[in-house]
Amino acid sequence: MSTIDKVLARIDTDLDQSLDRLFDLLKIKSISTDPAFKADCAQAADWLAKELTSIGIEASVRETTGHSMVVGHRKSGKPGPHVLFYGHYDVQPVDPLELWKDDPFAPSIQTKEDGTKVIVARGSADDKGQLMTFVEAARAFIAETGDLPIDVSVLFEGEEESGSPSLHPFLIANKDELACDIALVCDTGMWDAKTPAISVMLRGMVGDEVIVKAANRDLHSGFYGGAAQNPNHIVASIIAGLHDENGRITLPGFYDGVIEMPEDVTAMWEKLGFSEEAFLGEIGLKHMRGEKGRQALEHVWTRPTCEVNGMWGGYQGAGTKTVIPAEAHAKFTFRLVGDQDPEKIQDAFRAYVRSKIPADCSVEFLAKEGSPALRLDFDSPALQKGKKALTDEWGTPAALIGCGGSIPIVGDFKRMLGMDSLLIGFGLEDDAIHSPNEKYNLTSFHKGIRSWARVLDQLAKD
Amino acid sequence: MSTIDKVLARIDTDLDQSLDRLFDLLKIKSISTDPAFKADCAQAADWLAKELTSIGIEASVRETTGHSMVVGHRKSGKPGPHVLFYGHYDVQPVDPLELWKDDPFAPSIQTKEDGTKVIVARGSADDKGQLMTFVEAARAFIAETGDLPIDVSVLFEGEEESGSPSLHPFLIANKDELACDIALVCDTGMWDAKTPAISVMLRGMVGDEVIVKAANRDLHSGFYGGAAQNPNHIVASIIAGLHDENGRITLPGFYDGVIEMPEDVTAMWEKLGFSEEAFLGEIGLKHMRGEKGRQALEHVWTRPTCEVNGMWGGYQGAGTKTVIPAEAHAKFTFRLVGDQDPEKIQDAFRAYVRSKIPADCSVEFLAKEGSPALRLDFDSPALQKGKKALTDEWGTPAALIGCGGSIPIVGDFKRMLGMDSLLIGFGLEDDAIHSPNEKYNLTSFHKGIRSWARVLDQLAKD
Repeated sequence: MSTIDKVLARIDTDLDQSLDRLFDLLKIKSISTDPAFKADCAQAADWLAKELTSIGIEASVRETTGHSMVVGHRKSGKPGPHVLFYGHYDVQPVDPLELWKDDPFAPSIQTKEDGTKVIVARGSADDKGQLMTFVEAARAFIAETGDLPIDVSVLFEGEEESGSPSLHPFLIANKDELACDIALVCDTGMWDAKTPAISVMLRGMVGDEVIVKAANRDLHSGFYGGAAQNPNHIVASIIAGLHDENGRITLPGFYDGVIEMPEDVTAMWEKLGFSEEAFLGEIGLKHMRGEKGRQALEHVWTRPTCEVNGMWGGYQGAGTKTVIPAEAHAKFTFRLVGDQDPEKIQDAFRAYVRSKIPADCSVEFLAKEGSPALRLDFDSPALQKGKKALTDEWGTPAALIGCGGSIPIVGDFKRMLGMDSLLIGFGLEDDAIHSPNEKYNLTSFHKGIRSWARVLDQLAKD
Repeated sequence: MSTIDKVLARIDTDLDQSLDRLFDLLKIKSISTDPAFKADCAQAADWLAKELTSIGIEASVRETTGHSMVVGHRKSGKPGPHVLFYGHYDVQPVDPLELWKDDPFAPSIQTKEDGTKVIVARGSADDKGQLMTFVEAARAFIAETGDLPIDVSVLFEGEEESGSPSLHPFLIANKDELACDIALVCDTGMWDAKTPAISVMLRGMVGDEVIVKAANRDLHSGFYGGAAQNPNHIVASIIAGLHDENGRITLPGFYDGVIEMPEDVTAMWEKLGFSEEAFLGEIGLKHMRGEKGRQALEHVWTRPTCEVNGMWGGYQGAGTKTVIPAEAHAKFTFRLVGDQDPEKIQDAFRAYVRSKIPADCSVEFLAKEGSPALRLDFDSPALQKGKKALTDEWGTPAALIGCGGSIPIVGDFKRMLGMDSLLIGFGLEDDAIHSPNEKYNLTSFHKGIRSWARVLDQLAKD
């Protein structure tokens, strides 16, 4: 029996105890946004530091100006990559409480109508259940073999659900301690209940806010209509000119750095059976917008976008007010992919906007910080090993997927610690994270532990 | 000495008494918007009814659900047109009171630095001073000749500054009594202190509000950006497509019914010496917008316009919120001229908007009532006679001018009583109506009285 098989067998045997420990953590009301639960957050951090230390990962609670971090290490200069595992112990608030069928902090295992067993509690999926898959995998490894196969550091955060205000200063202050070869982040999902996934692309973002001004005050449209500039019209023309009739963004150089996916990747995605109908139907729509001739997953993962998140100018109340407003506003965000350069795109955007400003109007910009897209090289050894580990465990090839939104920690690790992230998680779409009756499939927990054991085993190989 | 010369001589002789009477009216605090001044409004109505009756215009106070109307008649079936004179006895509130140099309701005659004598009080120009020019002209005529040269009815309103809520029901209920051959309305201004004016064109208006909806809820732009329709973009494209690069409005048929001014009219306007620089400079602008190749006065008087008075969709707060809103809004008004048909324009607008709505989006319209433009036939006898009377009095040809905004009473008279209006007034741009230290030039009052005497005299001629 190989080492990994022994570790996996121990995981299976110890599942009930693993669940007991998870339940202990789930009972702690570590809601980070609500100051009433400050002590609970501290309790969760203490619990995790003790738990890590008890299994041989020397850990401590590290104070910040907000909720504490938990940092642990077990390293002895082993060959193979030194990994930093990240998860967060804080959870979302529970309101509306009346929609919960059970106490959110009294975890239980329930059986759904289709026979699926689920762990029900706030934080079961986001992110306590997920982070404990790694802790339990490490525990089993050490218990069975006396050690971990590679050097491991751990970072647990307690402010992920409240904007991570302490994270940047903490990463900067502890850069040498935390910078590893690669980060393992467990806060994402599977493709579906049978298909494990690694998120290999995260879109970047750059935003800008535009204020167009004309007259020195709001004007009466009877006296000045047709004669004075109307900032609403200018802002509308700026917005309208950003896309052409094929849905492409018109800024010069905008598509510089956008990368076409290799054919084997798009072929893999086509096999995933993504339902455009279900994706759009759920929000009441039927037709994919965006550039023509692209498959649905490209739109949300690999193509850049431009969206106006807000626009306003003039009168918004009931009835008519015949005003020409002195100014109008719009907020823009661009999602970036590949090697698109946020600064160059902001420059191109501002040049375009300025070109649309007629005499008598002025424009101001409210800068937003931009961040480039992130992606793992498809050929990177860590990715290939992670993929093999997941494929071995689940019996279905692991999908390499994109993510339309941003996961700030990944960008922070990349930019502040120079470290790529391997995003592996076992959440499912119906987990109801951030909602009442949050759950985590028992299978996600059990096979999640086994998956991490396999990932550690793979990463140790040459 | 001709009859009119005798009447004019009496006006000159009686000026001090005319001023005493005006001051009595100006002392009454008839602020219609503030319920605290309800009794004052009633007092002003009573005062006017008694004043009219005392000079031989049989008048009564007519109750409404709001402030009272004053209606008077002196008619005996004379040849010549039967005229209805309109003015309003209510005034604007006086705040900010601390900016007044004198008590707003303690009228006085003051001499400005350049030697101009002005009557200072709330309502001196808007509209008590103006309406009293007609009352004093009628008084002088009757005193001198024993009668008025034509049949005269009078309507004084007490709610003009608060939206005239009682006017429509009152006009409908008293249509037979009030419908005359022509209305004389004294609530407008001169072109400048030396040039009398008759307002012969008022732009009409039609408005619409557009609500564009897409998804059944606000979306995260990371997950749905580029894939789901963004109503902000649709509304912006609707707005942006309404004008072409020459400033013309693109709706099919929009310019049907727009009338080019006769050359003598545009030539007259060119001679008025309107300063585009001053007009725009006052609001901080320099460049006339709108259709190219038109003189400034055409833009504000005789050309139709389309203005977006309000638009909004999505996030308007500080910072970034990466949302694709479920809906976006815009409020449009079109100023109409000539024979443009509000209904046809609304139909063309809605057809245009619908043509811009992609699959997956829907549009709703919030209807606004439209009103066509109003204009006096340049050749109408009443206009020619009014013009001669003013030119005789002021020694400068009366300007026939337009008005970019609307004067609701004129539309009401036209639509509800089938009656055109001759808009003659003696206000000046620096009268500070609606503002602290409102004034009315003594010349406006004195020569205004003389002007109305001449107008009545002219209207009586074949």
